[in-house]
Amino acid sequence: MNRRDFLGTLAAGAVAAHGRLFAQPAASVAVDPTTLRQRIEALSVYGRPSGGSFADGVSRVAYSDADVAGRQYVMDLMRAARLTPRIDPAGNIFAQRKGSEASLPPILFGSHIDSVPTGGNFDGDLGTLSALAVIDACDRARLITRHPLEIVVWAAEEGVAFNRGLSSSRIVAGDVAPSDMDQVWNGMRRGDAIKRIGGEPERIMDARRPKGTWHSYLELHIEQGGTLERAGTAIGVVQGIVAIERYEARVIGFANHAGTTPMAERQDAAIAAAQLTLAVREIVTSRPGRQVGTVGKIELSPNAPNVVPGSATLIIELRDLSVELLKSIAEEIRARAVSIASATKTTIEIVPASSNAPAIADTAVQDVIERTAKELGLTSQRMPSGAGHDAQMMARLAPMGMIFVPSIGGVSHSPKELTSWEDCARGADVLLHAVLALDRA
Amino acid sequence: MNRRDFLGTLAAGAVAAHGRLFAQPAASVAVDPTTLRQRIEALSVYGRPSGGSFADGVSRVAYSDADVAGRQYVMDLMRAARLTPRIDPAGNIFAQRKGSEASLPPILFGSHIDSVPTGGNFDGDLGTLSALAVIDACDRARLITRHPLEIVVWAAEEGVAFNRGLSSSRIVAGDVAPSDMDQVWNGMRRGDAIKRIGGEPERIMDARRPKGTWHSYLELHIEQGGTLERAGTAIGVVQGIVAIERYEARVIGFANHAGTTPMAERQDAAIAAAQLTLAVREIVTSRPGRQVGTVGKIELSPNAPNVVPGSATLIIELRDLSVELLKSIAEEIRARAVSIASATKTTIEIVPASSNAPAIADTAVQDVIERTAKELGLTSQRMPSGAGHDAQMMARLAPMGMIFVPSIGGVSHSPKELTSWEDCARGADVLLHAVLALDRA
Repeated sequence: MNRRDFLGTLAAGAVAAHGRLFAQPAASVAVDPTTLRQRIEALSVYGRPSGGSFADGVSRVAYSDADVAGRQYVMDLMRAARLTPRIDPAGNIFAQRKGSEASLPPILFGSHIDSVPTGGNFDGDLGTLSALAVIDACDRARLITRHPLEIVVWAAEEGVAFNRGLSSSRIVAGDVAPSDMDQVWNGMRRGDAIKRIGGEPERIMDARRPKGTWHSYLELHIEQGGTLERAGTAIGVVQGIVAIERYEARVIGFANHAGTTPMAERQDAAIAAAQLTLAVREIVTSRPGRQVGTVGKIELSPNAPNVVPGSATLIIELRDLSVELLKSIAEEIRARAVSIASATKTTIEIVPASSNAPAIADTAVQDVIERTAKELGLTSQRMPSGAGHDAQMMARLAPMGMIFVPSIGGVSHSPKELTSWEDCARGADVLLHAVLALDRA
Repeated sequence: MNRRDFLGTLAAGAVAAHGRLFAQPAASVAVDPTTLRQRIEALSVYGRPSGGSFADGVSRVAYSDADVAGRQYVMDLMRAARLTPRIDPAGNIFAQRKGSEASLPPILFGSHIDSVPTGGNFDGDLGTLSALAVIDACDRARLITRHPLEIVVWAAEEGVAFNRGLSSSRIVAGDVAPSDMDQVWNGMRRGDAIKRIGGEPERIMDARRPKGTWHSYLELHIEQGGTLERAGTAIGVVQGIVAIERYEARVIGFANHAGTTPMAERQDAAIAAAQLTLAVREIVTSRPGRQVGTVGKIELSPNAPNVVPGSATLIIELRDLSVELLKSIAEEIRARAVSIASATKTTIEIVPASSNAPAIADTAVQDVIERTAKELGLTSQRMPSGAGHDAQMMARLAPMGMIFVPSIGGVSHSPKELTSWEDCARGADVLLHAVLALDRA
């Protein structure tokens, strides 16, 4: 294929917009799917249940021995690719491949390798090892990009250690105070945990990076939902990471004897809690859109078989890209709670528990990912990310984009989490060519 | 009032049936309400929260220091009444007042003085101290009954210690094995607990008493529900103690990411649990009668705000005098669970957890109580007892009857538990005259 043909099929949009031509025959640039698979399998050993296999998933909680060993494995791969890994004060691993134009900021891409307890082998691992596959592909093609290419392994993405998700990308985005290092989780000081993975807690404020540090940020990730698989779509172009609003609903009834209190006289907090749980689902699904609402936690008191429940606490979680929609749904839930309280002779107080703003993916980067997929002959669809990702922190510093690949059965945070090797390779190829398209832009 | 007039007003039924006359002017027999109140107040000191008052209730859990001290106080009152308290091998306190006919079995009456943690001052205490008031009343009237009068303080009625209600009346009724003494609760061996209150665990099998030991058993107790108060009725004539059927409902859904799992794809165990909780109430209340049904305990897993609940366990408790009705209700709940499981894409298994047979009050004894109330000018109504009582164990050994007095607001097992002093005295008077009527029968 000559250069014009290649550009015509692969990157028509970017080329049409900028008319820039390259020295390299980019058509020969592709990730090596065999090596990508081998590395995902090799990484799965760190945190694997004793005596288990790949299918048994992984427990590689941030700061654990398995996490330390897995990070070492990834840094060895970086060195094998003639990169020099650097650990920032927060414990994030960065490595840079030089570009041809020294004045340009790097294009950053990567993911994480920590997991939830009894998690799967694709969440984070795929994006991390695909970033290395992008570097390898460029090396094999002897392709030098204009921008430096920088890959990253974010530390402690999952909200397990210290109960805080996106723990270290959050620091890079500036959301950190020196006193955070004194937080304690499982008897471990956070500063000591960060030191354990090679960070420098005493210099934690130096981990912050200003806007403009990077040209753009890309992250490949498994969808963690079943939307792509059901639609038969290869690539998800992420529109943004949804806002998450959590509310605590406190139901106060009256605890009384379950044998002697007639049904008509009860102020049963479990009845009110059940009605509220069903109301959340009904209200969330009564509107068009992809918003979700969950009552994932319910605590009754005294929670005894022979006592009419006196109180209940529920956590209501709402997610969508649109904060306005979430506010409107919350209002409707509040209004419904008033009538439930009245009907059940209870009181229901609904108080905000936490609020995460949405992170919108850069529309130009979305366009690049969508075109790249098309040029690779892959179907794609735009979709929100219902899960949190380090990408949402990077959206504060640079134009951000995310690429999703299908999760079989939509299973996530489970040893059963699975993405086909073909889809892994497709996602990595989209990452590679989107990086190259951004480099040309 | 001459003898014929008194008998005409007080015990017409019993006299008409048996034509028996007495040497004592029974019209002068009455409990002393002032002493009864003083003793309830005095007993409340044992287990009272430090610095608290009568209104702060009592924590007199079986086998505690407060229980031991409270029992000592009651035994002192027995001695003051020239009775000789005897502690049986199970720790129950008995004391007998001689009758005129040595061959007749005693009429037994009493209650318990142990409480739930942060309980009230009437549950058990009223029946125990009223039994003493009956003895005092007979003494003051120099009335000698035909049958011996035997009073009892049952040990460990509340199901707190060793998680077993009616603990020691159960032993007297024969439900005991020597190995039961090896049960451990709160680090205490049951045998040692029983020894602590003066029982003889090594002779525990000797605590069993055969049918025919007693002529009859009566117990005065607070209602623990709001039925009498709402109806403005002074006396409840207990028809029996309800059967209690408990089922464990195990809901299996699929735990998944609360952000990435679309609403339509969820197998949300909390939704199924909420529907089942509401179905129990709906089914129980759709039929006439006084049956009750409670979902008092719900456990979700993983019970995290950001995970669609994967499983739920509920305890469904049903109570009524009619076992047939409970079986029919349980069948309807099972059928409903099938459709809930189908609608929520979950599975629901409902397994029996425990089953307590009902204990029917002797109808002749019910008649005696009802007539006695009427002759004392008190309104009464027949009603089931939704709560368990030692009386249900005694129903295995002798004709049993229970007298209820109103609980203000229906509050029970709470420091707020309250019965007016007037109602306490009325209940004690009904107990006294029902005992005398039974003695004549």
